[in-house]
Amino acid sequence: MLTTICFDADDTLWHNERFFRLTQEHFASLLRDHASSDHLAERLLEAEKRNIGHYGFGIKGFMLSMIETALEVTENRVPGSVIAEIIAAGQDMLGHPIELLPGVQETVTALAGEFTLLLVTKGDLLDQERKLAQSGLGELFDGVEIVSEKSPTVYRSIFSRHGTTPTQALMAGNSLKSDVNPVIEAGGWGVYVPHGLTWELEAAEPPEGHPRFRQIENLSELPELVREICHNI
Amino acid sequence: MLTTICFDADDTLWHNERFFRLTQEHFASLLRDHASSDHLAERLLEAEKRNIGHYGFGIKGFMLSMIETALEVTENRVPGSVIAEIIAAGQDMLGHPIELLPGVQETVTALAGEFTLLLVTKGDLLDQERKLAQSGLGELFDGVEIVSEKSPTVYRSIFSRHGTTPTQALMAGNSLKSDVNPVIEAGGWGVYVPHGLTWELEAAEPPEGHPRFRQIENLSELPELVREICHNI
Repeated sequence: MLTTICFDADDTLWHNERFFRLTQEHFASLLRDHASSDHLAERLLEAEKRNIGHYGFGIKGFMLSMIETALEVTENRVPGSVIAEIIAAGQDMLGHPIELLPGVQETVTALAGEFTLLLVTKGDLLDQERKLAQSGLGELFDGVEIVSEKSPTVYRSIFSRHGTTPTQALMAGNSLKSDVNPVIEAGGWGVYVPHGLTWELEAAEPPEGHPRFRQIENLSELPELVREICHNI
Repeated sequence: MLTTICFDADDTLWHNERFFRLTQEHFASLLRDHASSDHLAERLLEAEKRNIGHYGFGIKGFMLSMIETALEVTENRVPGSVIAEIIAAGQDMLGHPIELLPGVQETVTALAGEFTLLLVTKGDLLDQERKLAQSGLGELFDGVEIVSEKSPTVYRSIFSRHGTTPTQALMAGNSLKSDVNPVIEAGGWGVYVPHGLTWELEAAEPPEGHPRFRQIENLSELPELVREICHNI
């Protein structure tokens, strides 16, 4: 029997990646005299990969990687005013208003009565808390887990902390790599809710055919899917 | 009866502020042609205060505030090579080795058998996890709470999550503002363990005379103090 429904946050409950893309476009326009947009994107991704072990996930690390990339592609000749604009763009991201994805409010409300609801998210602690507070969904969750990575071990420890076995837990999210595959590996149900935009570092293959893997178009379909799963196990 | 002992991490279990001071000295030397060390320190502190609501606590925010201050004091004329050095200095901080404070290993080990031990810390998620892992103390703690602020509400929610009432909980730390006063306000015991260096934003007055306030010289005195408190309540 399912007892616990977990949700990813960014691009599962609310828009996020689009703000990264918009900022990255702005970043490219600031540096258009020094690097083509494609080349810059490549160098930025390299910097993000190189730094993720230091910075973890989130906007502050993204800001620092943009600054580092700006220095690199200009051989340190980037004007100070451009660095100042990168910082301002990052601070804008840290203040952007939350816009829930379609069906989220209804789905979370509908499931809150019957299940233990957990939010499981990576990113900067304070920023993720701010977004949850602004989303108006905070009271519906029984627990909020902001973690530095989403591995099978991390999921197992979250489930155990909330008194559930993995087989009783389902996680819904837009990242196969972080939300779906490791939960299935941990013994739980993984529900993939694709979002148009996915950061390259989150790409992975879907575990097609796995008995605890499901895919839905958007979060409105989740309550129905949860009923079905509960009915069949 | 006490059941739960909580510890702050930075400058309670291991050295931390000294790395911020060393980096700040390096920062001052990089900008010595543009600003006096005192003036620069003042501007940096202003930037940190202005940004803390956006960035939260930790090294990444410190790096971004140093970059912002370097731009400000030079009116955006800071050379790119200096920005690159600030980033390198911040990354060094994110990799600095952990050095436990005197008596920490023995104290934590001694209390681990008898009490629920919690680590309660602010800062960047990944960086705090790294430090705990490197400290070798990870296995001794029953829970790790990395939080964006340390308010009475946050402490109450931590205590409740770990099945303890505030009166059964004691928190030891080097910050009156974050580790001692809010715990006492929440109904718990606050033990102040001063560290020579305290960041200006953590300054506060000690609650002298409060029945649940104690001060010790270093963490070695904690097991004795815990025994005393248990004996008297």
